[in-house]
Amino acid sequence: MYVQPVGTLKWELDTPALILDLDVIEGNIARMEEFLRGKAARIRPHMKTHKTPALAYKQLEAGAIGVTCAKLGEAEVMANAGIRDILIANQIIGPIKIERLMSLTTRTDLMVAVDDPQNVRDLNEAAGRWGVRPRVLVEVDNGTHRCGVQRGEPAIQLAAYVAEASNLRLAGVMGYEGFAVFIPDAEERAAAARGAMEILTGAADDCRRAGLPIEIVSGGGTGTYATSGAYPGVTEIQAGSYITMDGRYKSIGMPFECGLTVLTTMISRPRPEVLITDLGMKQLSHEFGMPKVLDVPGATLTRLSEEHGLVELDDPSAVKLQAGDKLEILPSHGDTTINLHDYFFAVRNERLEIVWPVTARGKSR
Amino acid sequence: MYVQPVGTLKWELDTPALILDLDVIEGNIARMEEFLRGKAARIRPHMKTHKTPALAYKQLEAGAIGVTCAKLGEAEVMANAGIRDILIANQIIGPIKIERLMSLTTRTDLMVAVDDPQNVRDLNEAAGRWGVRPRVLVEVDNGTHRCGVQRGEPAIQLAAYVAEASNLRLAGVMGYEGFAVFIPDAEERAAAARGAMEILTGAADDCRRAGLPIEIVSGGGTGTYATSGAYPGVTEIQAGSYITMDGRYKSIGMPFECGLTVLTTMISRPRPEVLITDLGMKQLSHEFGMPKVLDVPGATLTRLSEEHGLVELDDPSAVKLQAGDKLEILPSHGDTTINLHDYFFAVRNERLEIVWPVTARGKSR
Repeated sequence: MYVQPVGTLKWELDTPALILDLDVIEGNIARMEEFLRGKAARIRPHMKTHKTPALAYKQLEAGAIGVTCAKLGEAEVMANAGIRDILIANQIIGPIKIERLMSLTTRTDLMVAVDDPQNVRDLNEAAGRWGVRPRVLVEVDNGTHRCGVQRGEPAIQLAAYVAEASNLRLAGVMGYEGFAVFIPDAEERAAAARGAMEILTGAADDCRRAGLPIEIVSGGGTGTYATSGAYPGVTEIQAGSYITMDGRYKSIGMPFECGLTVLTTMISRPRPEVLITDLGMKQLSHEFGMPKVLDVPGATLTRLSEEHGLVELDDPSAVKLQAGDKLEILPSHGDTTINLHDYFFAVRNERLEIVWPVTARGKSR
Repeated sequence: MYVQPVGTLKWELDTPALILDLDVIEGNIARMEEFLRGKAARIRPHMKTHKTPALAYKQLEAGAIGVTCAKLGEAEVMANAGIRDILIANQIIGPIKIERLMSLTTRTDLMVAVDDPQNVRDLNEAAGRWGVRPRVLVEVDNGTHRCGVQRGEPAIQLAAYVAEASNLRLAGVMGYEGFAVFIPDAEERAAAARGAMEILTGAADDCRRAGLPIEIVSGGGTGTYATSGAYPGVTEIQAGSYITMDGRYKSIGMPFECGLTVLTTMISRPRPEVLITDLGMKQLSHEFGMPKVLDVPGATLTRLSEEHGLVELDDPSAVKLQAGDKLEILPSHGDTTINLHDYFFAVRNERLEIVWPVTARGKSR
């Protein structure tokens, strides 16, 4: 890829370009650490948002205790970048993935989620062969109804089963309140998160009463960090999107700033009221609603085809833009938009400071 | 990436895996060539579908006259793989991209679309400096109302402007009837395509009457190939999806077979009626509707989160699948699903034959 010189003005960058505003994302990292100051919980930021070791290191330097990954392939990228304390907040299933997991455990202090006794047996058998003892979190379904066991006997039994597995270390429980993170009303969202954390910390207490060692209680997303991160008994939160933010999280009033945009060039103005962008749904996700055009009053992105976007203008005579001019767009969903790009163009004061490959992009295995 | 041996059964492949059935896609390529036999039009297949030189070569060997690309970055990948006859069916705007375009013209017989006199001036100036003479197609808006000039004076004037540009070669006109390709009713779709081709071939004739040399008349997508590819005066069609097909094109009755699936592992069966997949919207697009679960009666993919899918079962007792078992899923939109993956796993008779990197994936600049 042709990269322009450091110092290039943002508006002169070739497009489509995924832009990070470094002052903003550093501010978001600091704001999260400030919130956690004096609290029991720490942050273990989710890598599925940015998939980029350089950003992980910014979070670790600020105080994060490790990283959370959605995929084994993401964890491998982070391990290759030298990060040791890694939670894979998912079930790792099947012989090929379990071998890779054990290989990764030889060089990291890995944690993995389980919700099934057969998977515990498979992990334990492989760990024995590899001479490693990965940490394990029992995933509890605390309201999202995706993976996870139910609180009560199922959670206690599975935790006991892990504790008995000689090659595994029972480290704690985890649960992700995904159902709650986007509830628009802040009070309702907080109530939903409290309910989810009551289930999760309750499951941890159940296990402790059964004599099982539970150190880690891990949950929380960007939408619920303030509730979950302050909830008694929660030891770490897995928020990811807070670092870059996006249109949807901003719309529910999260106290972080949007530091992620996509720069596009207008390739045509076929009619006065229409601009055509050089990006479409292959560069900009829209499952959470249409991304917003920034800084041009009355300009609305109304349609995305694969490689084009249609921007309609309320007042065509007020907008002088033409083919070759640029627009900045705020993604509605940061994580899935980042996943479409190979590079971050990181700017400060509107000038290019550094280009980072999105190293774990596509590492879905 | 860890790749399993050639000959591995499809069902034993690690997941998520983008699967190509080679017999099916070779059949689709042959079916398209058979349709075109004896007709004036040839196919210039669109690379935005598969983004993979190995598949381009299968199409070229079968009779394709060249390739169509959506992006300059895709064209560079195809040129690096040795393909010479390349149409970039888009406007290439801005100094960086125009320099790259000229560089590419030194080693390919490139064609590019234009719809704006300033862009013609910019291209002509750069071509002069580089000592190249790229071919140019005037893009005509034949109903999609995206890029392109209108038929009549605007098209004639722009074609004349290109013809006068000493460093450019006016090669013809193009127009993409994207508005028509998904019309469900076959008769209505054919009528819409005829209308679009009437505009496009009419614009070509207008130019010829004005003394301008128009050799190439390029249009047509997978949904309209049978109409556009048989329309008098059309010289080439740009269909892409016919090679792999997908659920949406199949739903409107296209006579090609679906040769693209995504293999997923169930990572959890938290309740009898629910299976959780190891892929979500980062591995499977759903803007054209939910992808379909194959071969398991009563199994419906009802929700995609970023890294998980929820499969609900009508009759849980009839389905023995559990964590570790695999499901095959038919994408609703092939192009955007392929764009999420780094590799094709190409199988024949359910066994792995070859792994191809999706080389132009993410080459959106």
